[in-house]
Amino acid sequence: MIRLFVTADLAQDHALALDLGQSRYLTAVMRREVGDEVLVFNGRDGEWRGALEVVAKRGVVLRLTALERPQAFGPDLDLVVALVKRTRIETIIEKAAELGARRVRLVITERTNAERVRLDRLTAIATEAAEQTGRMDVPEIVEPLKLAKLIETWDAPRRLLFCDEAGEAKPVLEALAGTPAAPWAILIGPEGGFSPTERESLRNLIYATPASLGPRILRADTAAISALTLWQAAQGDWRGLEVS
Amino acid sequence: MIRLFVTADLAQDHALALDLGQSRYLTAVMRREVGDEVLVFNGRDGEWRGALEVVAKRGVVLRLTALERPQAFGPDLDLVVALVKRTRIETIIEKAAELGARRVRLVITERTNAERVRLDRLTAIATEAAEQTGRMDVPEIVEPLKLAKLIETWDAPRRLLFCDEAGEAKPVLEALAGTPAAPWAILIGPEGGFSPTERESLRNLIYATPASLGPRILRADTAAISALTLWQAAQGDWRGLEVS
Repeated sequence: MIRLFVTADLAQDHALALDLGQSRYLTAVMRREVGDEVLVFNGRDGEWRGALEVVAKRGVVLRLTALERPQAFGPDLDLVVALVKRTRIETIIEKAAELGARRVRLVITERTNAERVRLDRLTAIATEAAEQTGRMDVPEIVEPLKLAKLIETWDAPRRLLFCDEAGEAKPVLEALAGTPAAPWAILIGPEGGFSPTERESLRNLIYATPASLGPRILRADTAAISALTLWQAAQGDWRGLEVS
Repeated sequence: MIRLFVTADLAQDHALALDLGQSRYLTAVMRREVGDEVLVFNGRDGEWRGALEVVAKRGVVLRLTALERPQAFGPDLDLVVALVKRTRIETIIEKAAELGARRVRLVITERTNAERVRLDRLTAIATEAAEQTGRMDVPEIVEPLKLAKLIETWDAPRRLLFCDEAGEAKPVLEALAGTPAAPWAILIGPEGGFSPTERESLRNLIYATPASLGPRILRADTAAISALTLWQAAQGDWRGLEVS
């Protein structure tokens, strides 16, 4: 079933006019017709089932017929990631959405070769991934900030899993054992790694837990996906699924 | 330091003629000159340091000066992955190399939209990723086989982590707890999932351990990376790193 993220309020029997892009996608691309059903969510009101009521040139109108799932969020997890080249950042955004990060914060480090990023494009990627992965919110993409500034403005109760590619830290699962629950953030450095000064200051943060991602050198996108996976498995919503 | 995979034997003081592609990469792209050093490995003789001795139009000759690391392999882990579209298969191959899979076996399932694959291109991707990630072998890419045939010809002592997106299995870390060590394989289905018949026959294999990858729907490349990560963390070489 097609899932669409919308911004309008959702409630029983509401008529919902889709924007032109979504309308064209439903009709021209996916060949949906009056009476066909789709799912919609807005990050606030849960996931709703709706039926196509009007299919016109100016757009599609849905009639909401049933609340499928009440609004829920994954654990409060940020991914803080150094700007890397465009294709890898786009992969990271897509995977962060699939792996349940609530926010992605872009960060500029000493060794970042900062390319310009288009937040609107990254948000579109996050939205599409959220639609496909089945979550009921879209991860927020936060514009790039220098690492020093990020640390200065840190909200202190949030813990930081600092993925330290220099490799003298404990493996992630060992490092996370016995640590408090969310809120957390995962920090992934640029492909050239953090500078010695940056590593020193990160390791001195009382809310930081350094951790290693194995014996091989990982690209930034691999490191982000692996760290998100291990955090979800150890601390997040990959634990305690109902087993039939 | 640049690392190159070569096929020739490696030993102290050997002269090693690089092929034209690698020679051009070293000189035209990376601007290396006589006396500069690189690392080479061939999957048998360990990782060697070599210095550029001849830089000529017909190619570069290295003189091997020291064994940097004796030959070692990661754990005996296969990734068995259904053919998915080209860009995602290429991502999977790159990540399998970074995450230490020893082989990638391509498999055709009922819901596979099999595109043709070029094994030479996939092997080139695996080779480049192996060079960059620091491993001393290149994962073997095994040509596509039907799932039924794969099961028929299974080498029985190898266990199979069956990533069952239908979601009634235990989470991977729980599923792997207490299971025997390598050899293992990880099985990732196509984006449309396994058919009910396939799921049934996979769940009946005595060497198979079904496992779930969390509450969201993952694309095939994400599922492969997450499963490789969790296996390495629970059973592989991401455990027991030396902690300084």
